Order: sequence, then C-alpha cells, then structure tokens
Amino acid sequence: MRVVLDAMGGDNAPHVPVMGAVQAVREFGISVILTGDEELLKKELEKFSYPSEKIEIVPASDAVPMDEQPSKALKRKGSSIHVGLELVKRKEADAFVSAGNTGAVMAISLFTVGRLKGVDRPAISAVLPNLRSQTFLLDVGANVDCKPFHLLQFAVMGEAYARYVLGEKNPRVGLLNIGEEEGKGNELTKEAYALFKAAREKGLNFVGNAEGRDIYSGNFDVIVCDGFVGNVALKLSESLAGILAKILREEIERHFISRLGAVTLKPAIRTFKKRIDYAEWGGAPLLGVRAPVIISHGSSNAKAIKNAIKVAAQFAKSHLNEHIEENIQKYGKLNGC
Amino acid sequence: MRVVLDAMGGDNAPHVPVMGAVQAVREFGISVILTGDEELLKKELEKFSYPSEKIEIVPASDAVPMDEQPSKALKRKGSSIHVGLELVKRKEADAFVSAGNTGAVMAISLFTVGRLKGVDRPAISAVLPNLRSQTFLLDVGANVDCKPFHLLQFAVMGEAYARYVLGEKNPRVGLLNIGEEEGKGNELTKEAYALFKAAREKGLNFVGNAEGRDIYSGNFDVIVCDGFVGNVALKLSESLAGILAKILREEIERHFISRLGAVTLKPAIRTFKKRIDYAEWGGAPLLGVRAPVIISHGSSNAKAIKNAIKVAAQFAKSHLNEHIEENIQKYGKLNGC
Repeated sequence: MRVVLDAMGGDNAPHVPVMGAVQAVREFGISVILTGDEELLKKELEKFSYPSEKIEIVPASDAVPMDEQPSKALKRKGSSIHVGLELVKRKEADAFVSAGNTGAVMAISLFTVGRLKGVDRPAISAVLPNLRSQTFLLDVGANVDCKPFHLLQFAVMGEAYARYVLGEKNPRVGLLNIGEEEGKGNELTKEAYALFKAAREKGLNFVGNAEGRDIYSGNFDVIVCDGFVGNVALKLSESLAGILAKILREEIERHFISRLGAVTLKPAIRTFKKRIDYAEWGGAPLLGVRAPVIISHGSSNAKAIKNAIKVAAQFAKSHLNEHIEENIQKYGKLNGC
Repeated sequence: MRVVLDAMGGDNAPHVPVMGAVQAVREFGISVILTGDEELLKKELEKFSYPSEKIEIVPASDAVPMDEQPSKALKRKGSSIHVGLELVKRKEADAFVSAGNTGAVMAISLFTVGRLKGVDRPAISAVLPNLRSQTFLLDVGANVDCKPFHLLQFAVMGEAYARYVLGEKNPRVGLLNIGEEEGKGNELTKEAYALFKAAREKGLNFVGNAEGRDIYSGNFDVIVCDGFVGNVALKLSESLAGILAKILREEIERHFISRLGAVTLKPAIRTFKKRIDYAEWGGAPLLGVRAPVIISHGSSNAKAIKNAIKVAAQFAKSHLNEHIEENIQKYGKLNGC
C-alpha cells in the first residue's frame, strides 16, 4: 500500500505534512510518497528517524496557494497536487492525501483521474462525531446548486463509504430537511425524497428526513444535503464547538478556580477537545473520482495528517469505488442524462 | 401597553403561559390579555396572586394543535391564535405572543392583520447569543425557496429589528454564504449579493458575506439566509449546544468529581446554560406582518413566556413596522413585481 501525500498542502507545509508522514510510517507501516520541493522535503526529513525505504520523494516544482481559484490551479501542471494525482492515475500509488486547497484538489482530480461511471458530480464529505459514533455528511461544499439526482448519487456514495470504510453494517441514510415528515422541505428536497424512496425499494437503507439536530444525534450514519447547506452546517459546527468550550471554561473558572486554586482543568478540557476534534478523524474523502482521495483541513496537525494517511489506505483497500459504481447501477438510472 | 398571549400555545399550555403572564405582570407591569378556554384559564389564574386588573381573559373556543397543517389551522376561526390576532387587528391590543404552532401563527397573521407594504414574504427569525451580544438570524423556516429580493427584504427587516428593538446603533448586516469573497455562493446568494451591494449604496450597512462560523462569531449583528438553511442552522445549534454541554460535563465529572467528592458543578453548568439558553431571549419576532408578533419555542418555560411578553411590548413601542415600511421604500424597488 503506497499513499501519496501532497507535502506542500496545508497551513504549515511542508513541516507538518512531513511529520505526519513519518508518524504514519512508524505507526502503521504504510509507505508514503511525498510530492513537493525536493530540497525542502529532504531537509524536513532529516529531522526525523524512520525506516528510509518507506518514504520516497517525488519532486514537484510548483505548489497551489491555499486560496487560489481552481481554474487557475489547474494550469499548474507541476504542482504537488498534480504530480501526486498523476502517480495514482499511473497506478504507481494507491491513494492521495492533501491538506491543501480543496477546490484545487477536486478540480485536478477531475482533470487527472476523472469521475466514476454514473457519477455526475463528486462530493466533499465530513466525518462528524456524534454521541454514539460518527455521522458522515455530504456534500459540504463542492456542489452549491444541486438537482435531486445529485443528492441521490451522494447518498449512494456516502452509504458505500460508511459501509466499506467506516465499517457500519447497514448505514442509515437520511436526507437533510426542515421536518421529519414526507412532504416537508424546499423544491430540491421534496423531489429528492421521491428518488430516495424509489431507491429504498431497491435496497437503499433510506430512513427518512433528517433535521439539523440529527447531524449530531446519532440517529443517522449518513446525511445527504447540497453543498451550500452542508458547508454552512460544517463551519457552524466547528465554530460553535470552540465557542461553547470557551464559554463553559470561563464559567467553570469563575466558579471553581478562584476557590480551588491549583486544581487545573486541563485533563478534562483536553479529553473534551479530543472527542469533538475533527482532526482526530484525519480527513474526509472526496467521493466520485476514480481514485481514493482524502482531503484534510488546512489547519491539520501532524496527527491529523497521520490519520488521513491511514484513512486513505483503508479507502484504497476497501475497493470502495467499485462498490459505488455497482450501486449507482443497482439503484437505477440515477443520473440526469 | 397591552399584550395578547395565546394561552393555549406551547407544549405545556395553559399552565406555563399563564404562569409566564403572571410573572410579566408582576415584574414589568405590562397588561396581558389571555386567549383560550375561559374555564381552564380561570382555574390556572386562581393559583397565583397578581394585580387582577392587569390580566384579562378573552375566551377562545378552539385551539390549534402543535403539529397541524397551517391550511387546516386557518379554518379554526375560534382558535386562541385567531381570537388573539383579531384583538390586535382591532387595536384592542398592541402585540401578540404565542408559543404555539409556528406555521399556524404565520398563516393566521397573514389572514388577519396582513403583510406590511412592500414586503412579499414575512420571515421567522431567531435571536442567538454570540461572544459579544447577539446575532439576529432570518429567515429560519418560513420561506424555504427564496428569490434574491426576498433575502434583501429580510435584510431590511432584520436591520430595523436589530436597530429599533435590540438597540444596536448601526447593525452590521451579512449575507450567509460559503465564502467571504464576492462571487462565492450558489445562484441565490450570488444574485442577492448584487442587490445587497446596491442597497449599501443607499445606506444599508451591508458588510459582506458571512460564513457558518459567523453565526456565533459576533462579527455580524444580522445574518440573512433562506428559510431552509436558517432552519438547519438553528436546529443544529440547539442540539449541538446540548450535546457539547453533556460531553464536557461527562469529561469534567470523570476527571474531577472522583477526586473532589462533594464539590458540585451545578453553579458553573447553570450559568453556562443561561448564556446559551435561547429561552432567555423569550422568543423571536415574525417580521413583515402588520402587527408586533412574537413566536416562542413550543418548549418555553414561564420565564421564556415572560421575556417574550416583554419583547412584544418593546416591539410595539418601537414603531418598528413603520420603520420597516420606510426602509423598504428607501432601499428601492425591492419586491419582485
């Protein structure tokens, strides 16, 4: 198993990606190919000890800035993203990981490896912790104006990911909506509901509409929405978690620390952060392209990169993309053509 | 100032609304008219002592169930909602409060008092606490498929509410979107951005796109979105606040209580809950109809009802609706006709 890591992607590249790669090699024994500035990467690697046969550098002369338009990024054929995805396309590697520019990773994936058969649009996803396990939410930003059949394709892809990579036996799929009952929603979700119901006849475990509260309720394993709504939900969650932790910390300090002096809250806050920390999940798949691609947060630390490499390897081992193509077929003519 | 309260609305009616009314009378000296089942309300009122001239019952023979379709609810001309809004229409009262069926309150408001001049669609709003003060979010569920000019009308109404009722000097208005830059977004928000920019030329303090994280950042006083996105954001927030408090509590107990024995976390948790508790805000206005209408959570406690009555009185005093009609005029031909 060989995972390519875009060593130039992320807010703290290449230091953090290289450290993450070294950790993945040491802990999981996964072979990693780093793409990026050869001199820089060599210097970074010298800081660590690791089994040297497990990390290889494939030079890339260019890098995509974090905020560059995907259309511009596409023109940088020598970028670490482009070089990395070409390796996967040529079967010289099994999966690709980047904490870089999400839009650029998607655009270059489409350009190099292309779409899966029957998938009109790839989706970006998020793995969110809930009280029981995790909720797989998609799309979270790739597709801001969707047709109902796009949502059904997201459902098929998300269901397969939850089953074959996250290990859910029979993932419960929900359609994000503003009420539980059939007939609720906007034009998009009302029409999508009908398609989801038809797919249920053919075996999709569609359990109905999910509401905003269900993203964290644990009542659904996969929740499907358009990329606009998903993006708002994701960014809202990330900020709210931080803000609530801050407020509660202030309150506890106000009531306790003055009285308890030396007693520190650190262990509780640390474990709390770990439970709500999306970095723990490493990254989330870009689904619908002909290669296992994992996109990590731009602010990922080494641990998140390490976990993303592990997830990428699981994705590759699972033969997920074959399952997705089969299911897209199985649930009928789902595309718009 | 006389506020009508739908005493049959909410999960624990009429007990909780009556208690809330008594508290509002005692604390704020506001006169309250209760609409609902006369016998039931008399019995409830007997439980409390209060200045009797300040609470009046206007009988209503019917009540709208919490989950009834608005179209059905409209036919109950004798409902506590209908009777209450008729009182406001006939100027026998100044404002209306209900913790009942939101869709029914909106439909019956449109049927009785009607829309403000220049407003195509009323909006339901939410007052959310942020790290500095509060964010006024609208629409949160009344309008799931919007046109760009609807969003601009929401902006005008929200800005006026933040200014004249919440007391913000120059409310910063944001358009909920998936990126900060102009040009980001779906078809709706891209077109709306152009309208908001044009309104900025005429004086609207439109500061740009807001992202999901900005709902709680304190960088905006008013955030505008369609009712689908707003509803998901609101329900997500409510559930996440509860879940995070629960997780953090577990973690703190795991790390501390075993060691500290009798030390209780109650004061900290209580203050925390108060800061994030939407009930503290009492309720949120239905904007765009020809009367001050406040809608409270179905699960409101007496304190939330009391605060809602206070907010309703402030709304009535502010002459908000006159300001809204002026501003809709000022910011140009904003409706779609």
